[in-house]
Amino acid sequence: MTSDPVRLGVAGLGRAFMLMVPTFDADPRVKLVAAAAPREESRAAFVRDYGGAAYETVEELCADPSVEAIYIATPHQMHVDHVLAAAQAGKHILVEKPLAISMEDAERMVRAADEAGVHLIVGPSHSFDPPVDLAARLIESGEFGQLRMIQALNYTDFLYRPRRPEELRTEEGGGVLFSQAIHQIDVVRRLAGGMAKNIYAMTGAWDPKRPTEGAFTALMSFETGCIANLTYSGYAHFDSDIWMNDVGELGQPKKAGAYGGARRALMNLNPDDEARLKTTRTFGSGTTIEASHNEHFGPVIALCDRADLKLTPDGIEVFGDTERHFIEAPFGPAPRRTVLDAVVDAVRNDTAPDQTGAWGLASLEVCHAILTSAAAGQPVDLQHQCRTKHEEPTE
Amino acid sequence: MTSDPVRLGVAGLGRAFMLMVPTFDADPRVKLVAAAAPREESRAAFVRDYGGAAYETVEELCADPSVEAIYIATPHQMHVDHVLAAAQAGKHILVEKPLAISMEDAERMVRAADEAGVHLIVGPSHSFDPPVDLAARLIESGEFGQLRMIQALNYTDFLYRPRRPEELRTEEGGGVLFSQAIHQIDVVRRLAGGMAKNIYAMTGAWDPKRPTEGAFTALMSFETGCIANLTYSGYAHFDSDIWMNDVGELGQPKKAGAYGGARRALMNLNPDDEARLKTTRTFGSGTTIEASHNEHFGPVIALCDRADLKLTPDGIEVFGDTERHFIEAPFGPAPRRTVLDAVVDAVRNDTAPDQTGAWGLASLEVCHAILTSAAAGQPVDLQHQCRTKHEEPTE
Repeated sequence: MTSDPVRLGVAGLGRAFMLMVPTFDADPRVKLVAAAAPREESRAAFVRDYGGAAYETVEELCADPSVEAIYIATPHQMHVDHVLAAAQAGKHILVEKPLAISMEDAERMVRAADEAGVHLIVGPSHSFDPPVDLAARLIESGEFGQLRMIQALNYTDFLYRPRRPEELRTEEGGGVLFSQAIHQIDVVRRLAGGMAKNIYAMTGAWDPKRPTEGAFTALMSFETGCIANLTYSGYAHFDSDIWMNDVGELGQPKKAGAYGGARRALMNLNPDDEARLKTTRTFGSGTTIEASHNEHFGPVIALCDRADLKLTPDGIEVFGDTERHFIEAPFGPAPRRTVLDAVVDAVRNDTAPDQTGAWGLASLEVCHAILTSAAAGQPVDLQHQCRTKHEEPTE
Repeated sequence: MTSDPVRLGVAGLGRAFMLMVPTFDADPRVKLVAAAAPREESRAAFVRDYGGAAYETVEELCADPSVEAIYIATPHQMHVDHVLAAAQAGKHILVEKPLAISMEDAERMVRAADEAGVHLIVGPSHSFDPPVDLAARLIESGEFGQLRMIQALNYTDFLYRPRRPEELRTEEGGGVLFSQAIHQIDVVRRLAGGMAKNIYAMTGAWDPKRPTEGAFTALMSFETGCIANLTYSGYAHFDSDIWMNDVGELGQPKKAGAYGGARRALMNLNPDDEARLKTTRTFGSGTTIEASHNEHFGPVIALCDRADLKLTPDGIEVFGDTERHFIEAPFGPAPRRTVLDAVVDAVRNDTAPDQTGAWGLASLEVCHAILTSAAAGQPVDLQHQCRTKHEEPTE
């Protein structure tokens, strides 16, 4: 046991990593000691900012003996190879959601981590957001009676942000299912204890220029009897952040006058220009997000017998039988601190968070079930679910 | 053809009628000439306020030759007898939603009106609300491309308002399905053109003291390809009117400090006291609602290809590709004027509104399908749908 900083290697220096930079920079419990990235510019920026080694390949990163754990922030379709490499090298792993695209890959990854005796954590994901954590603990306490229904919705311009071509191909993990639904599923499963029973869903692929699922709506049931309604549109013009106190997904106050920005920026761009525009959102060339609230993933309401809990970026509005009050979920010192709590707890204390590989596999199963249900017009039973740590079975 | 006021008889002087009083009183196109009610106090109040005849039974009202049309505002389970009586007497009919409880009754009522050659209108219903009408016309215009998805939600304290015992028994039309879902279904069908294909739903009956469905969540698909997500909770502590500019269902500004009022009023009441409390909400003894906006039934967002339309009590927020603007749906001179537009158009111009008997039967089918789907855990195909007048088939 040591209180030395966890020595972290970073695989992939794109947008996902960039969004974690403020978190890493503010937290003395972790130290970025190495990275891997194919782009020379990104590697140079890493060495400049953090020192340490910067490799061209993830395999070289995995071989670096100074690295204790690897944060895998490469594109979705590469997660499987990189998680397997890290596990084989005996490194603990924090992998971006979604764990994988295919269930087979996800199962191999979970097995590999088990066999290697390393922790596999899937995150960041909005199920780590402090208001979600607070709501989950309030529900688990039983103070408000049983959780009956969850409504989650999110309307964004996701599909019109700059994309690489594969981000618009469903079979390669593109569209809103694997990248966005996974957040909502994680949040809802976290609140409801994890064990989803079945799901029925409808999806929309409505823009022939961006031919992937851009929206879905789904009903889930849980073994506890809780039902949940999840809706996401990445085609949206209406921005549901107005129902989250005008705070954006990343905790940043929304700017007045920014309306329609994503679609405007995209007009008259060809795919090459668009892919180039995407690289301006990566490490070394991107702009920083100024978060002053917790992150969130759109309005979520959890209905219990004796109160409804409405999540906000700053905490929980508790609407009780005869009174209402607010419970704060403090922000900071940096965004996503709870993700590093999980990494440090795993590496230093051998304690796993809710968001393990098995958890990520269970949420991935729900993504696939949404596609399957929508195609078949039938509900789909779920077979790979797992519980949150605190939730006891009801039977 | 005449421009004389339509001579209306009223069957039932309870809460439904009371909510129509400001509409009748403000509109010179109709004249209340007779009524039927079992309670002496209500009849006396009617004669005092309107003159004309007040009968004990609906049969006597139907026999009154001065009556051209009858507004049937009796409890749900009596609609069938009263509609049949009115049709047989050759009177045009405005019947409160739901048209009936059973599909068989609804079919008999539609047939009876057809055979008698009288108009049968189901209303008031929130599909008559001016913002819904405006949104339906904007969608039909095609200006914003195709309608892709509708999200409708409503969180109220419906189950904790004073109820007669049968209003808490599903088989007699109690609970939120026949009384509340019917509004949401009407609104969504009106926006989507009417022809629902199938529905999948989950329901909740969560309070053993009030053992009827108090909540549901459902996904519908339409022949146009539009999908819809409908959620209603009558157990709610969270009040979704905060997302409707703090305007209540009846167009009244919400009062600060009224939080939890329904549950507080109900505490320690036995069923007899509760039924008595309900009669204080009827004609002759009730309090008046001061509407200053259009009525509404909770947040509704209609996603089209080139804009999302968000309904508010005052009109439509149009969120376009690069700009947003607001289109007003003027209020007044009295609430529910559009319901009397339909009555006058039917009686004086032989023109039917969207909300005919066949329409009401189609919406009732969806209520039953919600219960059937929730019980079976399977989607239910719909067989009795009809189109809005303006919507052309897509094939």
